[in-house]
Amino acid sequence: MSEQLSKTEKCVYFFGDGKADGDGQQRNLLGGKGANLAEMSLIGIPVPAGFTITTDVCTYYYNHEKNHPETLESQVVSNLRKVEEAMGGRFGDPGNPLLVSVRSGARVSMPGMMETVLNLGLNDRISEGLIAKSGNERFVWDVYRRFIQTYGDVVMGIQPEDREHDPFEAAIDSVKARRGITLDTDLTSNDLRELVDVFKDIVRDRTGRSFPESPMEQLWGSVNAVFDSWNGHRAIVYRNINDIPHNWGTAVNVQSMVYGNMGDDCATGVAFTRDPSTGAKKFYGEYLVNAQGEDVVAGVRTPEPVAKMRRQLPHAYRTLEQIYKKLELHYRDMQDIEFTVQEGELWMLQTRTGKRTAASALKIAVDMVKEGLVTREEAIARIDPAQLDHLLHPTFDPDAPREVLATGLPASPGAASGRAVFTADDAETMAEDGEAVILVRLETSPEDIGGMNAARGILTARGGQTSHAAVVARGMGKCCVAGCGALTIDYNSDLFAVNGTTVKAGDWISLDGSTGEVMLGRVPTLNPKLSGNFSTVMKWAEEIKQLDVRTNADTPQDSEIARKFGAEGIGLCRTEHMFFEGDRILAVREMILAADESGRRRALEKLLPIQRGDFEGIFRAMRGYPVTIRLLDPPLHEFLPHEPEQQHEMARQMGVPLGTIRKKVQSLHEFNPMLGHRGCRLGVTYPEIYEMQARAIFEAAVNVRKKRIRTLPEIMIPLVGTVKEFTELREMVDRVADEVLGGGRIKIDYLVGTMVEIPRAALVADAIAKSADFFSFGTNDLTQMTFGFSRDDAGKFLPAYIEQGILEQDPFLTMDQEGVGQLVIIGTERGRSARDSLKVGICGEHGGDPDSVKFCHRVGLDYVSCSPYRVPIARLAAAQAAIE
Amino acid sequence: MSEQLSKTEKCVYFFGDGKADGDGQQRNLLGGKGANLAEMSLIGIPVPAGFTITTDVCTYYYNHEKNHPETLESQVVSNLRKVEEAMGGRFGDPGNPLLVSVRSGARVSMPGMMETVLNLGLNDRISEGLIAKSGNERFVWDVYRRFIQTYGDVVMGIQPEDREHDPFEAAIDSVKARRGITLDTDLTSNDLRELVDVFKDIVRDRTGRSFPESPMEQLWGSVNAVFDSWNGHRAIVYRNINDIPHNWGTAVNVQSMVYGNMGDDCATGVAFTRDPSTGAKKFYGEYLVNAQGEDVVAGVRTPEPVAKMRRQLPHAYRTLEQIYKKLELHYRDMQDIEFTVQEGELWMLQTRTGKRTAASALKIAVDMVKEGLVTREEAIARIDPAQLDHLLHPTFDPDAPREVLATGLPASPGAASGRAVFTADDAETMAEDGEAVILVRLETSPEDIGGMNAARGILTARGGQTSHAAVVARGMGKCCVAGCGALTIDYNSDLFAVNGTTVKAGDWISLDGSTGEVMLGRVPTLNPKLSGNFSTVMKWAEEIKQLDVRTNADTPQDSEIARKFGAEGIGLCRTEHMFFEGDRILAVREMILAADESGRRRALEKLLPIQRGDFEGIFRAMRGYPVTIRLLDPPLHEFLPHEPEQQHEMARQMGVPLGTIRKKVQSLHEFNPMLGHRGCRLGVTYPEIYEMQARAIFEAAVNVRKKRIRTLPEIMIPLVGTVKEFTELREMVDRVADEVLGGGRIKIDYLVGTMVEIPRAALVADAIAKSADFFSFGTNDLTQMTFGFSRDDAGKFLPAYIEQGILEQDPFLTMDQEGVGQLVIIGTERGRSARDSLKVGICGEHGGDPDSVKFCHRVGLDYVSCSPYRVPIARLAAAQAAIE
Repeated sequence: MSEQLSKTEKCVYFFGDGKADGDGQQRNLLGGKGANLAEMSLIGIPVPAGFTITTDVCTYYYNHEKNHPETLESQVVSNLRKVEEAMGGRFGDPGNPLLVSVRSGARVSMPGMMETVLNLGLNDRISEGLIAKSGNERFVWDVYRRFIQTYGDVVMGIQPEDREHDPFEAAIDSVKARRGITLDTDLTSNDLRELVDVFKDIVRDRTGRSFPESPMEQLWGSVNAVFDSWNGHRAIVYRNINDIPHNWGTAVNVQSMVYGNMGDDCATGVAFTRDPSTGAKKFYGEYLVNAQGEDVVAGVRTPEPVAKMRRQLPHAYRTLEQIYKKLELHYRDMQDIEFTVQEGELWMLQTRTGKRTAASALKIAVDMVKEGLVTREEAIARIDPAQLDHLLHPTFDPDAPREVLATGLPASPGAASGRAVFTADDAETMAEDGEAVILVRLETSPEDIGGMNAARGILTARGGQTSHAAVVARGMGKCCVAGCGALTIDYNSDLFAVNGTTVKAGDWISLDGSTGEVMLGRVPTLNPKLSGNFSTVMKWAEEIKQLDVRTNADTPQDSEIARKFGAEGIGLCRTEHMFFEGDRILAVREMILAADESGRRRALEKLLPIQRGDFEGIFRAMRGYPVTIRLLDPPLHEFLPHEPEQQHEMARQMGVPLGTIRKKVQSLHEFNPMLGHRGCRLGVTYPEIYEMQARAIFEAAVNVRKKRIRTLPEIMIPLVGTVKEFTELREMVDRVADEVLGGGRIKIDYLVGTMVEIPRAALVADAIAKSADFFSFGTNDLTQMTFGFSRDDAGKFLPAYIEQGILEQDPFLTMDQEGVGQLVIIGTERGRSARDSLKVGICGEHGGDPDSVKFCHRVGLDYVSCSPYRVPIARLAAAQAAIE
Repeated sequence: MSEQLSKTEKCVYFFGDGKADGDGQQRNLLGGKGANLAEMSLIGIPVPAGFTITTDVCTYYYNHEKNHPETLESQVVSNLRKVEEAMGGRFGDPGNPLLVSVRSGARVSMPGMMETVLNLGLNDRISEGLIAKSGNERFVWDVYRRFIQTYGDVVMGIQPEDREHDPFEAAIDSVKARRGITLDTDLTSNDLRELVDVFKDIVRDRTGRSFPESPMEQLWGSVNAVFDSWNGHRAIVYRNINDIPHNWGTAVNVQSMVYGNMGDDCATGVAFTRDPSTGAKKFYGEYLVNAQGEDVVAGVRTPEPVAKMRRQLPHAYRTLEQIYKKLELHYRDMQDIEFTVQEGELWMLQTRTGKRTAASALKIAVDMVKEGLVTREEAIARIDPAQLDHLLHPTFDPDAPREVLATGLPASPGAASGRAVFTADDAETMAEDGEAVILVRLETSPEDIGGMNAARGILTARGGQTSHAAVVARGMGKCCVAGCGALTIDYNSDLFAVNGTTVKAGDWISLDGSTGEVMLGRVPTLNPKLSGNFSTVMKWAEEIKQLDVRTNADTPQDSEIARKFGAEGIGLCRTEHMFFEGDRILAVREMILAADESGRRRALEKLLPIQRGDFEGIFRAMRGYPVTIRLLDPPLHEFLPHEPEQQHEMARQMGVPLGTIRKKVQSLHEFNPMLGHRGCRLGVTYPEIYEMQARAIFEAAVNVRKKRIRTLPEIMIPLVGTVKEFTELREMVDRVADEVLGGGRIKIDYLVGTMVEIPRAALVADAIAKSADFFSFGTNDLTQMTFGFSRDDAGKFLPAYIEQGILEQDPFLTMDQEGVGQLVIIGTERGRSARDSLKVGICGEHGGDPDSVKFCHRVGLDYVSCSPYRVPIARLAAAQAAIE
């Protein structure tokens, strides 16, 4: 950016009439809009002619106490001449007037943050001339009064606090009241003419100055107003939030006005070069005759399908057909276009890449590759991986009515209806009876796993998008709305109240996990259909990507789903979920209550065959692919009931005094369980637990091997923070392996590694890697500890943080590359410096987030692991990362 | 270390007779003991002659399948000749026998971890010769049977599981039973002679080999046994725990035996060159005539004061006097010596730096500087800073009887007696009545502050050395025993049971905060007396140290104490404690219950003048010195009562429904409060709180300034993890400053900085430092998050971690330099890279830990801050760091 523009330097760029001084690449100099207009004009698209004042001028303006470079005025004047030539009118000439718009245009779009002046170049004399030329008096007075109103606001500073105090709107209301009408459209030509006079009076009264009659004065006033709006409050805040440098400045686009509302040979419309909802190769859009652009969107009149234009405005339509094809070919992507027909002549106002549904994105990608329009890589790069999510879950029928009770956090996508239940037990019982249920809880805990599994969807009043409910639900591919604070849940009466409605146990409710909506009754759903395009795109992604994509799965069922979605192994098999199902929880509790090691070992003996069976199932499902098994992680108190009723039940079931259970619960209580006695700390203090798990893993591998199925167990020690934690436990695992495998007589390849989720582990990664075969970054916990955020509590301040722009994104959903990412890089680099062959992956929620997946690719990880339903998203993101 | 010893390389080092091949510097080659003996001999101290086989030989031994280097044998033989010459006896010569000991000696002491053989060189014929020479038959048989017993165990591998299964001891017991005696000393010469035969039979039976008659064979067997013991199980575990490399190896010392138990012209004793308890310059020690070294320590006979030797063994005493003076001069420190007189001749067995009390250490330091023996720096370097702690707190009269009920963790030093109370309220009420009370709680919370302040000491059943109780107590300089798990506290009945005793409210108990002992009744205490030596040493420290030492203090009283101890400002003034006292808690609770910002502001209005008063007091106490004030840190739920009874009381006091309070408590509940809605997260979501605090600080500064007292407020934003948290809040503080100081009309210097306690803050320190004036590492929380350890819960596994050597030290007491230290370094370096003038300190518990203080000096911090009573310790450590 030049601080000082030389006297002769070019600072105004013409576009129009099939020519342009600049092109689409010059976004930095011309802003996004200016570059776009230049590009369209260059390729022969009819755009209303105009010129762009460069961003350098804006910079100069701010560096020189709001003065312009000397050369600017003459360049503007000469370019104005070119515009007049192209459009066949003259700026300020009552005989053949040319009106222009003045708009901002920064490098990146800052929608609505800066100022715009339309219809510029009018005064009383020119209005009369325009009436003579157009023969449309009402149109001209309407345009004129609009211009004064905008100019008064934007340039002359008549900014009301609200509509009620807006003097211009007050004047309109007064005329309407006098005339007994309510719609602006009912104002007559005379009314509007009167308003023009009133408006000019308002300007004089409010500013002490007359409304400027000189079109050139109007132009410079507007140009400066746009420059000034670059440093308006809204714009500054927006740039702060979006990390846009304040010294970029904005360009100013001065462009001829064209009107779609001058008569029946005029029209305005928007269209897509392909169908944005299905992707079908079909021109798709709407238009209105004798209307302004905003009318199409506003919904006052119902627009016509664009195909109808073929008959109504045949010349313009033929041109439009040629143009949309040209634009798609030029930009090599589906375009979203805006056009205006003025007196039978077609003008293109905008073209941009069209937004599309996930299904459409896939079809367009596959079609365009077939058509030879784009390469596979380009096609892949254009699909938004996050969008795929919609394809993989059921959705509500968009046409069905919804009675929304409240909106919580969209914690796990999908749509589900069921009867409300308030305990995990009820959920299980009713589901066994074939009922669809929605589990409603203040928050969930590991005790609720069975009920969550049985429910169609989960609704909680507390907790964020990475609360227990959310994480488990996503893992299960189950719909979840979390942290719906509007609910008042009453467990005693089995009901919840919300915004005046009471929902009792057994009542039907529906959850939309993609929007967070909680609805009364049973909203019909549509099942997801995976098209052939999906498979095609996934196949391409597979060929392109370098990162492996694994899944987080704890059961053979989840493993099967993930395999279907293309998972290349399990990156995280949590063993604690296996401790809850059915009767095994009894053995787990027996172990916890045991007075000493031998008591614990007796209880663990009972668990051994069950765990072995679990692992056999998973090994079979993942045949040949690596399976990373995390040894027990949660604190033991999670396996004991905390509510008195359940404690009674447990005492009865196990034949132990209630007091014993209460005492144990009390003695296991923790202030900060997240930072407590869990993970490898359990392994160190109760080695017999990990020993049993290691034994179960190796015995399962041996059994599966007998059926000629290969296994690749990767045993993961969680929560390691010091070298010796790891080396001691690895030694134990190796010893058990040696025992089970008969000192090497049975050949099972296995790895022992650790989850890097404690900041300290990343800092001492070189020392740990000396004896670890792999690292898996547990970015959920790593994020919690690096930020000092408890993900179960962060709901109390994280929303405010994101709203205020303190954080751009929820770091539990998208990895914080600036902070947590540093630890991932440090851990990876130091780890590999000590062991070349170290396998490194991540297995936090971030493994399924596209931006985070790309980060992992750049850092050079070997794999990411995510919940089964996000595997396709991660695969696509991995392919995009490889392309980038 | 040479892997391969050349044929001629020297691997045996002689010492004795005023000569030595090595010296005191050669610890790596000769081991600690060997180097020490060489040094003593070199300076003319009479040590029994001997030689050292180097550590290189040990390494060779392990690298060559337990073979010796070729050259070893001849070197041993020739050195043995030198020893014979020096001592006037001959190894293996019945006519004039020489006996030797064979001991290990690694570079660093590994006490009791390796093997020793004494009295080596005996067989039947030599015994007869020795009897003839010494004329002391019983002595010889006793020495002989001991030799067989030890050699049988150490060299020949007759290692019983326990005493009962020890065949040698069984034989002794059998003789004693037959003779009807119980003490070994009652065994006659004949008994012992008989035992020698029995022992030899045992050896033959157990090993199938005869006891070796050849002294040379005995010697080599013992040398190899010492080498082997380097890799014994105990030694390996010890090295693992203490991070001693396994490849260092041990030296072997072969040294002539001397005996203090050959008759009345023999003696043995230990002595200190100065009084180890007072430091008085007075030879101090004890001896026993006709005794072995172990007899002096064992307490079977009462030893005599060493001064008595002057009359009893005048020649030896005169020599001893010369020697102890020589040793102190040579080593330039108080020595702890061991000696033996054999037949009137004095032999020195050992000299080492003498352990001493804190008082003695100070006196010796000051005296030796006066005597010109050492420099101030040397004197300072020798004082153990941790020891000073004892001087600063009351202690129990060591002569008073103690009835110890249980032992908890020594959480805050000092001694206190008082009546047991079980609630903070009771503590306050009884203290107001003039009673001494000890507050007994399961654990403490911020609600208990008032009661903790009123109590003489605090006893908790849960929580570790850095639990709330411990931290607050140390801050208050108050005695605390924490985590005393043996207590069963019953709040309903106001009593606790412990190991069969029940202590009711009102019963007297005593706490020793330095040992963790909980005692029944009232144990008399002694008040600390700070000597002139203390001031002298502190003055020297002041002149030497570079690091500033500040204090953590929240009240004017604490500030005064800290100033007296030499604190150079406040490094951490916690404002939350100010929220609890008296009526202010009502306003705090009103703020928390307020429905909206304006309600909160109304409540904060009431707090403003009170806080302002707090700060005025502190500014006055610290006149001129900087005061770092941390804005509110703890989560709001800490200010609400959690027990139903107190909630009722609050509802009554405030005139609000109980339900409102319960709901608020419920809505503020957090799963992991440590990682929750606290610190600057409160400042972001409720800026009015920080605003009030900032206003109170500046208004206080202005008021104090009117009294011509300078203030240097340093406002610290806690728990910052992202740049924008800091910049937003700093902007607010600057705005308030501007308002209070009339836009700069009043001149108050102030800084705004942050506490670096979130790992992420250290990682993005460069970005934060762009707008921060100072960093203060909050190493308590930084340790919690870097390790993922909740300090309130770590008591469940940390003791096991330290016991098993997974961690060498409690990272909450001594900074983990390997992990947390990295973040301190990263944060400091990055912070200073962005702002040269950045002031950097630490204010965690570590600020009072000597090792951590030294680390801070090395990293180049500007200051450390610690609780008032640790200020002298930190000052001394800072001086030592500067010296090092």
